[in-house]
Amino acid sequence: MLKTNQNSVEQQIEIADRAIMEKDYDMLMSIYTDDAVLVVEPGRNARGKEQLRNAFVKISEFFNNGLRVEQNGLEVLESDDTALVLANTVVSGPDFPAVTRKATYVFKKSEDGVWLCTIDNSYGHEIIGNAIA
Amino acid sequence: MLKTNQNSVEQQIEIADRAIMEKDYDMLMSIYTDDAVLVVEPGRNARGKEQLRNAFVKISEFFNNGLRVEQNGLEVLESDDTALVLANTVVSGPDFPAVTRKATYVFKKSEDGVWLCTIDNSYGHEIIGNAIA
Repeated sequence: MLKTNQNSVEQQIEIADRAIMEKDYDMLMSIYTDDAVLVVEPGRNARGKEQLRNAFVKISEFFNNGLRVEQNGLEVLESDDTALVLANTVVSGPDFPAVTRKATYVFKKSEDGVWLCTIDNSYGHEIIGNAIA
Repeated sequence: MLKTNQNSVEQQIEIADRAIMEKDYDMLMSIYTDDAVLVVEPGRNARGKEQLRNAFVKISEFFNNGLRVEQNGLEVLESDDTALVLANTVVSGPDFPAVTRKATYVFKKSEDGVWLCTIDNSYGHEIIGNAIA
């Protein structure tokens, strides 16, 4: 049973980043809406928690199970129950030098007042010209 | 009285861009939610239709009433009633050479099924480190 939390969007992102690094996919999925979209790579999206969970497992494997994620600068713009996050997301892993992505995330406040990620696009503008038809 | 429209997010952006260039602020405001946020410049936001309208009038004057806006590449990521737009927004005017901004817009579907802009951040990641406290 999830307790209602009153975390800020920033705190939800910290929880998600930690969950990714600890491979705690139940915790990670609790930060997303049921119909959330994740840009797995430009041109390839996952939709819904089952696809998202599978994608995160594969991404972790790709990074030799040592994926590290941190935010090097982040701003949140809130409008009512919607929030847009602009972030410099730094991704690295064993034998993977750090890469900074101009990430864009959209959060939505649930009826219980919990901020949940509904669009996760760590590639930002890189998806232009690469989107799924 | 506004009729319900079934425009796509892309079509709503086209209407908004045309309204900006034609200084049709009633039409322009019909594309935004009541509580929409506009990044006027990094570190300065307008909130709500009155502030947005005033900001657009001043922006138009700043560009000698000849502001031109066009999208040079654009992708929309939709999740249920929320859409994130990544766009290369080109802004120019008389004596203002064209500048391309890595713009980010969030749209929300109203109860009538109309896509309305609720967060308008044409500066994208430029706001990081410049946001309002």
